Amino acid sequence: MASNSNDNRDTNESIWRFKGNGATSDAAAVTLRKLVFGMFKNCNLNSGKTILPSTTKSFKTCPEAEEAVAAAVRSGMANSYAPSPGIFNARRAVADYLNGDLPTKLSPEDVYITGGCNQAIEILMDSLAGNPSANILLPRPGYPHYDARAVYSGVEVRKYDLLPERDFEIDLNELEAVADENTVAMVLINPNNPCGNVYSYDHLNKVAEMARKLGIMVISDEVYDHVVFGDMPFVPMGIFASIVPVITLGSISKGWVVPGWRIGWITMNDPNGIFRSTGVVQAIEDCLDLTPQPSFILQEALPDILEKTPKEFFAKKLKAMRRNVELSCERLKDIPCLSCLKKPESCSYLWVKLDTSMLDNIKSDFDFCTKLVSEESLVLVPGVALGAKNWVRISIGTEESELEEIFDRLKSFYGRHAISKHSTKLNGYANNQRVVSVI
Amino acid sequence: MASNSNDNRDTNESIWRFKGNGATSDAAAVTLRKLVFGMFKNCNLNSGKTILPSTTKSFKTCPEAEEAVAAAVRSGMANSYAPSPGIFNARRAVADYLNGDLPTKLSPEDVYITGGCNQAIEILMDSLAGNPSANILLPRPGYPHYDARAVYSGVEVRKYDLLPERDFEIDLNELEAVADENTVAMVLINPNNPCGNVYSYDHLNKVAEMARKLGIMVISDEVYDHVVFGDMPFVPMGIFASIVPVITLGSISKGWVVPGWRIGWITMNDPNGIFRSTGVVQAIEDCLDLTPQPSFILQEALPDILEKTPKEFFAKKLKAMRRNVELSCERLKDIPCLSCLKKPESCSYLWVKLDTSMLDNIKSDFDFCTKLVSEESLVLVPGVALGAKNWVRISIGTEESELEEIFDRLKSFYGRHAISKHSTKLNGYANNQRVVSVI
Repeated sequence: MASNSNDNRDTNESIWRFKGNGATSDAAAVTLRKLVFGMFKNCNLNSGKTILPSTTKSFKTCPEAEEAVAAAVRSGMANSYAPSPGIFNARRAVADYLNGDLPTKLSPEDVYITGGCNQAIEILMDSLAGNPSANILLPRPGYPHYDARAVYSGVEVRKYDLLPERDFEIDLNELEAVADENTVAMVLINPNNPCGNVYSYDHLNKVAEMARKLGIMVISDEVYDHVVFGDMPFVPMGIFASIVPVITLGSISKGWVVPGWRIGWITMNDPNGIFRSTGVVQAIEDCLDLTPQPSFILQEALPDILEKTPKEFFAKKLKAMRRNVELSCERLKDIPCLSCLKKPESCSYLWVKLDTSMLDNIKSDFDFCTKLVSEESLVLVPGVALGAKNWVRISIGTEESELEEIFDRLKSFYGRHAISKHSTKLNGYANNQRVVSVI
Repeated sequence: MASNSNDNRDTNESIWRFKGNGATSDAAAVTLRKLVFGMFKNCNLNSGKTILPSTTKSFKTCPEAEEAVAAAVRSGMANSYAPSPGIFNARRAVADYLNGDLPTKLSPEDVYITGGCNQAIEILMDSLAGNPSANILLPRPGYPHYDARAVYSGVEVRKYDLLPERDFEIDLNELEAVADENTVAMVLINPNNPCGNVYSYDHLNKVAEMARKLGIMVISDEVYDHVVFGDMPFVPMGIFASIVPVITLGSISKGWVVPGWRIGWITMNDPNGIFRSTGVVQAIEDCLDLTPQPSFILQEALPDILEKTPKEFFAKKLKAMRRNVELSCERLKDIPCLSCLKKPESCSYLWVKLDTSMLDNIKSDFDFCTKLVSEESLVLVPGVALGAKNWVRISIGTEESELEEIFDRLKSFYGRHAISKHSTKLNGYANNQRVVSVI
């Protein structure tokens, strides 16, 4: 037992029996938050450049949503503990919001209110972790919070690819090949972050049939359902729930440009009651009892936010996104090391391929982004953080002036790092030599 | 592989390979939320009685806090993702709020913002779960979210008793006896929920010395620090951080009567840097990257809430609590099966011993509360849910008229269930016979 005297109080640390849980590091290491906030720390604060993208010039939310929150807090109705699955009015409002497009209507009891989509992911992964051999199929590229929470819950991650040459459709053959008898679910992100595509009815129908064949549920992340500005209409996966049970995840974060507010939902699209009979409903409800609830204020405000936001708010934002996509693709021509294979039709990103062979002393997307933030105070997400090496995600949901500034900085960075004529020649020689030797 | 034909679509459930995680049930079963919301479901809605305690007649929060939230949402500054440890201004405001009483001042970096105290508990348990044999010492009675999250994180729970005959002080001999080389922490709730006592400086000093002797950290749950209305002043455990490293948990939930808002904090009181050298700081920061952040709106509002709430708001509330305690203890005289061993000096509950021998056909505190809710639509928390058999927790933080109604219903319930003269006699005979036979 440790000495209790004052003499060695500050010198002998070995008396302490506790230590931090190292297992958390493995999971946290793959989160986007860790990476992005880590990137911000690399900014050169003495450069005189403001850090981009800024939070102040991104699209604004609508006053109706702000006033709904202000009214909720002043009502005095949002002060007590909320029930774990969420307050009834919020659950009903989400069901009403989604039901227009669904053949089998959701009831309020099919909806659980969560602290944004990230908490929904956490709850789902915990709910599915019963079988210690369970694995889950995640898209590559994808949203890394799925990876982090699967690792943390002890669910094995297996990846299937999105095919750039086929508008980022799912490689269904590969999906089938990586699944086995321990596969419990596949995650689909539609509209797709980071690729910016929207899946067609026919493709989703094939996905549903494949999931049924494999005996797995579909988790459809539809958090960008209100940020679709291309020709392909958004089709909710819940339409196929009679083929395969579908859990959809949603939130106001993207549609209303308020990811910091933290209010979202899980919905159970399951006309055949499979989630109940397999204990998934019970596990989710148990998890909700164990995890922090989203603020009652946001729950209380949610019905008004969903019902009273004028259509013009979305229309204006989508118009701006179309303009931003055109502007970004035009400006990208000045930066030949980055190429956009498909103009995005949704979300608020440009997902571009990086050709490091055109750059001097930049070995990877991570290297590119790290140097970019340090030289230009510009934060892009390296593809490797989303599972795809040598791609880069550029946020373009911002004011036009800031978007121009983003591409000015990218161009300037490229100008400094593009392979010089001298080294191009060297590279050319090297390539030629290799080609010759192969032939 | 499952058939893909349409014929057996809705009949054959065995094609599905997923199932809900049953492990979540064990942990969720002990949460207070599960129990209390379960109790509400037993209310007889046809009785014509409103369910008590109501949320509408509990103490109101102050307009300054409401306006801080309204201003935060309208500022447009709270829309983006917040950094995982919380926004700097909120962390600084919490440090300033607590520093007045502390000999070693907290810096903003010692503070992590959480979605209320429950999320803080979750993060701590996950952070301490590195050693699969780790155990933690929890008070009995105590707050069951600690038990639930410890079970969920795989940390063994060991209990130490609070001594009713010594103003609910910690039984330090027992604490020492139940600890072993795998004990990593003890949890202390001060001011104490449910007992309503406040620990003295001397007692806390002894706790610190004992924790040091055992080599364990102290987790001090101080969520009721603003609800102290008796003679014993509140002493923050952080005062003893040079003896033993202390993590304190706090929130605005209780002081401002807004548990539904979900904003709280973890603070690291550790002048000797032990939490950093043992990896606890890293584990907590990793956990924060993995869990949902509290709403940025509440974080943005927090500095104004902490700084601009007038002292009169608290003074008025504490005066009302003193009055409620007197009134409750007076009314309790009409209900002889319930007795309060010590008038509460803090929190907003009456913690009373239940004597089931005075009641007909009521076997336990759980039975008492279940029948009470069904007959009187009055929800009390059975002691067993807080770890203490045949005690009951009565919420008394409400308007005087509602408090009278609560005791009217309790009296009426007692009147119907008190052992009748006839059965008292029978009981008396039975007792006598037993005594005789023993002699």
